[in-house]
Amino acid sequence: MGKTTDSSDAKAVGEAVDPARLERDLAFLATLGARDDGGVARLALDANDTQARLWLAEQAAALGANASVDAIGNLFLDLPGSDPTLAPVVTGSHLDSQPAGGRYDGALGVLAGLEALRALGDAGIQPRRPLSLVSWTNEEGARFAPGTSGSAVFCGVRGLDETRAIRDADGVSLGSALDECLAALDAAGIPRRPLATPMHAFVELHIEQGPILERVGAPAGVVEGIQGVSWFEVTLSGSANHAGTTPRAMRRDALEGACALAASLREAARDEADRVRFTIGKFVVSPGSVNTIPDRVTFSIDLRHPEAATLDALSASFRLLAGQPWAGCQATLTPLSRIEPVDFPAPLTALLADTAEDLALTAPRLMSGAFHDAIHLAGHCPTAMLFVPCRGGLSHHPDEHVDLDEAVAGTRLLAASLARLCA
Amino acid sequence: MGKTTDSSDAKAVGEAVDPARLERDLAFLATLGARDDGGVARLALDANDTQARLWLAEQAAALGANASVDAIGNLFLDLPGSDPTLAPVVTGSHLDSQPAGGRYDGALGVLAGLEALRALGDAGIQPRRPLSLVSWTNEEGARFAPGTSGSAVFCGVRGLDETRAIRDADGVSLGSALDECLAALDAAGIPRRPLATPMHAFVELHIEQGPILERVGAPAGVVEGIQGVSWFEVTLSGSANHAGTTPRAMRRDALEGACALAASLREAARDEADRVRFTIGKFVVSPGSVNTIPDRVTFSIDLRHPEAATLDALSASFRLLAGQPWAGCQATLTPLSRIEPVDFPAPLTALLADTAEDLALTAPRLMSGAFHDAIHLAGHCPTAMLFVPCRGGLSHHPDEHVDLDEAVAGTRLLAASLARLCA
Repeated sequence: MGKTTDSSDAKAVGEAVDPARLERDLAFLATLGARDDGGVARLALDANDTQARLWLAEQAAALGANASVDAIGNLFLDLPGSDPTLAPVVTGSHLDSQPAGGRYDGALGVLAGLEALRALGDAGIQPRRPLSLVSWTNEEGARFAPGTSGSAVFCGVRGLDETRAIRDADGVSLGSALDECLAALDAAGIPRRPLATPMHAFVELHIEQGPILERVGAPAGVVEGIQGVSWFEVTLSGSANHAGTTPRAMRRDALEGACALAASLREAARDEADRVRFTIGKFVVSPGSVNTIPDRVTFSIDLRHPEAATLDALSASFRLLAGQPWAGCQATLTPLSRIEPVDFPAPLTALLADTAEDLALTAPRLMSGAFHDAIHLAGHCPTAMLFVPCRGGLSHHPDEHVDLDEAVAGTRLLAASLARLCA
Repeated sequence: MGKTTDSSDAKAVGEAVDPARLERDLAFLATLGARDDGGVARLALDANDTQARLWLAEQAAALGANASVDAIGNLFLDLPGSDPTLAPVVTGSHLDSQPAGGRYDGALGVLAGLEALRALGDAGIQPRRPLSLVSWTNEEGARFAPGTSGSAVFCGVRGLDETRAIRDADGVSLGSALDECLAALDAAGIPRRPLATPMHAFVELHIEQGPILERVGAPAGVVEGIQGVSWFEVTLSGSANHAGTTPRAMRRDALEGACALAASLREAARDEADRVRFTIGKFVVSPGSVNTIPDRVTFSIDLRHPEAATLDALSASFRLLAGQPWAGCQATLTPLSRIEPVDFPAPLTALLADTAEDLALTAPRLMSGAFHDAIHLAGHCPTAMLFVPCRGGLSHHPDEHVDLDEAVAGTRLLAASLARLCA
């Protein structure tokens, strides 16, 4: 800590980021739950996930930070600021993965945050505000659905008891898995901390999980918000009849109707600007026999857009379309869930964009199409996100990949932005 | 046998059919494999199917006929003709059912044949040609696939050994189930008979399994042939990506492609006369997750038409369509099977139609959309079929239903036609 750096000197802070240290941490973390195919299976609150928490807590000492854990298992590393009355600036993401997951989704945000905190120390930044790193519990929801448990409970969006009651496929409750994890942290001497503590700002770095940054060749992106999403289920009912004996004029073919309705819904969702995300991912045809006319098709719609009004308008169009007969079949459209879009505050995204400019980094603004813990934090404190590109937009897959150069660029941008926020 | 009737006197022969006797037989046979829902589960070569054969063989004595069974389990009841050097006129169908089958599919053809033989005797017809009733083994193919085993082996279309080697879902071979059945028939003193014995003609009565006769209010139909059928498998390959993060322009959505290709194939198969039967019955979407763009769709095509040239032309159109890209996805079209159309000989169908006219029965000509044992017999001897309507065109279902009046009308037409054929 011999030198001191001006918190606003993005370049100096950024240069303190050590690519070798980040690379080493990424490689080590990938050993916890390593799969033979190079991927990672570190399911929420399993032994590897607990091991990852213990490892992260061990990093506190070298940083001069204090580790603590809350009732839902979120692990914090807190660096004091010069004014202890101020709320902290917080960064972080999650350490759990999908069952056939990659090394970067979640993990990169935690490790970039850790490296950013180290870089601030190495650069001799004297933060006025406290600075915290957090790893949120069960973001993926792969073992215990739904995900984003840690951030949702922390922010009061979901109750602790209802979340503890969720069971995995083997019937193990999240609560009992959590108690095992907390016992291991207790044994390591890590103290408890309350939920819902105030924050000055939260900035999460994450892989994009989409193709945009790679296509434009940008090493990072400033996320302006998270799209809203509506899920629907559509069912068409026709008549099952013999494929060989039933003339076309006497058919009510649920698949014929479903293909036509799906095409019309897709067309209704088509926008010039290509901002609407419309996906039919699940599509089940019954009885599913080669020589029987289908009598029932059920399909899903996943609809996303940054604006609630557009989601509303499209939902209304979908209802009208589903109200018509399709190949003589009756359709029903059932809304399953809706999550409102989140806009991150302009001053915070402007700070991130300005910092990128100061670092001479191309960091276009974009929306997040996927959920993140930041969606809950956005209701708790000023929140924003940074994205780094992942190869081919691929995530939730063992082949998920981030170039080290781009991970480093994103970490520099995160570190320099945190330095400004905690000044 | 006090009276004698002219074989060409359709009315007199028809009047000898006894509705109560037919009704009683239908009710009795429905007890062998009865389901709680009113349907029948009499799977090929199971205990109920063997019981049904034993019952049928017992009816021989009252008819003055001889029962015999061949190596594939086809059971024959043979009535002698006045000229024993002539090949017999044969009628019959099958006694096995689908697992959730009805009382009439197959069974009605056997029982109508039995009642027709009785009626000829009661009417005092002295047949010149021998007259036989047959029940073919495993028409349905529900337990041992493919079906029409008895007729195919009898006619030399398939080998006995390969057919015996087929196994059911429990691993039981058709051969071992057949041996059990044959042992029961042996114990009842029923002698063996050779395969492939010559026939003068074969006429099969069957339920239509389609809606046409019911729609036109006809109690019977003269079947002119059996449609040809081509089966295909179509596969589309795209890219699985995140539903929230992948812009439309960067997608290769296999489901979008499959719906568009399916609609184009359906349109290509559309004919004014409504003679083409085009069905997509199986349609499987992968990975089938609400928030993942599908990367693979596999679907079936069942295409039927009475003319081989039309099947050829449509197959060629399908190949051209599948050769194009669909929503950026590559499609492949694989032919799985093809069965050529069969035209029944005009003199035989004319005899059936003339007999219907003599009985003052409305019996329109139509094609069979479904397979029947008659498809194999058509290569063995002059063959034709009679249909009777079934309620709502429904078959392969416990609710399958035939009005007794229409079953009787069909049986009268069968009896009067057999009388003419064996004269």
